[in-house]
Amino acid sequence: MSKYRKDPISGRWVIIAENRALRPNDFVDNQVRRDIARTCPFCEGNERFTPGEVFAIRKSESSENSPGWQVRVVPNSYPALSREQSLESVHKGIYEERDGFGVHEVIVESPQHVMSTTQLTDQQVQCVFDAYRMRLNDLKSDSRLGYALVFKNARPEAGASIEHAHSQLIATPETPLAIQEEIRGGSDFFERHRTCAWCKIIVDELEAQVRLVHQSTSFIAFCPFAARVPFETWVLPRRHGSHFEQIEPGLLPELADFMKQTLLRMEAVLDGPAYNYWIHTAPFDTPLLDHYHWHIEIIPRLTKIAGFEWGAGCYLNPVLPEEAAKSLRIDKRV
Amino acid sequence: MSKYRKDPISGRWVIIAENRALRPNDFVDNQVRRDIARTCPFCEGNERFTPGEVFAIRKSESSENSPGWQVRVVPNSYPALSREQSLESVHKGIYEERDGFGVHEVIVESPQHVMSTTQLTDQQVQCVFDAYRMRLNDLKSDSRLGYALVFKNARPEAGASIEHAHSQLIATPETPLAIQEEIRGGSDFFERHRTCAWCKIIVDELEAQVRLVHQSTSFIAFCPFAARVPFETWVLPRRHGSHFEQIEPGLLPELADFMKQTLLRMEAVLDGPAYNYWIHTAPFDTPLLDHYHWHIEIIPRLTKIAGFEWGAGCYLNPVLPEEAAKSLRIDKRV
Repeated sequence: MSKYRKDPISGRWVIIAENRALRPNDFVDNQVRRDIARTCPFCEGNERFTPGEVFAIRKSESSENSPGWQVRVVPNSYPALSREQSLESVHKGIYEERDGFGVHEVIVESPQHVMSTTQLTDQQVQCVFDAYRMRLNDLKSDSRLGYALVFKNARPEAGASIEHAHSQLIATPETPLAIQEEIRGGSDFFERHRTCAWCKIIVDELEAQVRLVHQSTSFIAFCPFAARVPFETWVLPRRHGSHFEQIEPGLLPELADFMKQTLLRMEAVLDGPAYNYWIHTAPFDTPLLDHYHWHIEIIPRLTKIAGFEWGAGCYLNPVLPEEAAKSLRIDKRV
Repeated sequence: MSKYRKDPISGRWVIIAENRALRPNDFVDNQVRRDIARTCPFCEGNERFTPGEVFAIRKSESSENSPGWQVRVVPNSYPALSREQSLESVHKGIYEERDGFGVHEVIVESPQHVMSTTQLTDQQVQCVFDAYRMRLNDLKSDSRLGYALVFKNARPEAGASIEHAHSQLIATPETPLAIQEEIRGGSDFFERHRTCAWCKIIVDELEAQVRLVHQSTSFIAFCPFAARVPFETWVLPRRHGSHFEQIEPGLLPELADFMKQTLLRMEAVLDGPAYNYWIHTAPFDTPLLDHYHWHIEIIPRLTKIAGFEWGAGCYLNPVLPEEAAKSLRIDKRV
């Protein structure tokens, strides 16, 4: 049983999920790691180690929860949230607490014990992004859910506890604070400039070139002007769209290839860093928004977030985004 | 030359300080560590390794930048901000950038090569808190500065690059976002309840007992209801006051002892964790505020902030604050 709790001053919600402390960790010591191939819950043939799959891209002759899949989506064994909890809210004096209603799933990116998305074939990466899209479209049909965040923790410094390449998804009744703030910012920008902020940024970054990392017909990657951490990189569709799950399926191969190229550049320049990425998309119940533009944010975990960032809410970044982009532009993959 | 940069969508300011990437790190390898006693810039006798002191509590017969001090405040050698920069702001299309005007100081907590605040004598900790107070009162007289955040990074996982016990202070023209939001939250709470939020929380936590860690005549420590991370602990003065620097000097010995006891409990229970703390206090130019209450927030760095926290702006905490407080209540120091 997890709980949402609201801070009475900031209004900030946190999720208290005690069961998460119990989850196993591949990275504790080398001894444990040697046994991973036999016991990894995400390897093909080990399907019994996870809860039953909620979605898979698999051979038509194969059956659920058995080998034959390319991407497999399963409930997290140590979920932060669950649909078996209620939507009830309890007030205790000035404090407010809600049951941890929601969804927490794992997207297993490969049947093989591969450790990085960049080691997947292009077709495999495409299946991963297709799985994200399919899961969002499915979860959207549950009217109790308002939002789903797709995210990835790669390597232990970025919060991963299992090394087999995977992403996660957490769906909640309410739209998370970071998205609410971004939508509010996008709306204010639209009011002032009569255009989508991200569309405007795309035009400006393509013109300025200095923070551009690379581009394809439909996508662009650049280091944002006010990057919070060294080598922070954003991937955006060039054409306006507010909902990731409404992407034309025909664009998925290009997006998958583009993301893989972006991560390959990062791995080459930064020597295989820990990183996180997440998809920012509009809430389920909104129509196509003129003032919001879905995108992917990637942050390599090179520096520590320290007391000033925590206490001030202001990031201190020692690398100029223009310098980061310059390094990432040099294609070292050959 | 550092820069403030504003994200055009969120309005979030970041500080880009390229020189920070050059700072030395005590924690790179054991080889380097062995030479620390001879070369540590914070040890007594090595005063020449830091910029000239801006403040010190020292023996009356001793002279500036030489031995004989108890606490020494010096400009950071790799400052994020400096008063030699301008207050100018430049707009480049939708982007806004300002010179990195501000102050970045280091409070060296002991002349000896001590690694934790808890190893200091009570009198020494008192000098540290007195130095915070004195620096804030001094910086306040510079009308170009609006705020100063005192913070501490203890151990490398919390962002420390030097092991000798020290805290830092960053002063900026504008009040940082986290403080602005807290003041807004405090003001909203005051509107609704006609009382200071923190005063009300103190009463409620003393009554409920479950999240209380310990208390003294003038201070209280507890794990907040919506703690963001395991064992997050807040230290508050029981009597209302919005500005830390206006604390009665007679209370400093009690505060110093109280903070040391709080950190000792944390070190005992969590086996000497990395941690950060920071002082949240009202902006320089505000009068005594009814709706804001200065306090210290402490976070041990036990878990990794991962993709969900970054992408959603919502913390996922695997430890119930009541359980954390229960452990911290047991005084294991004997």
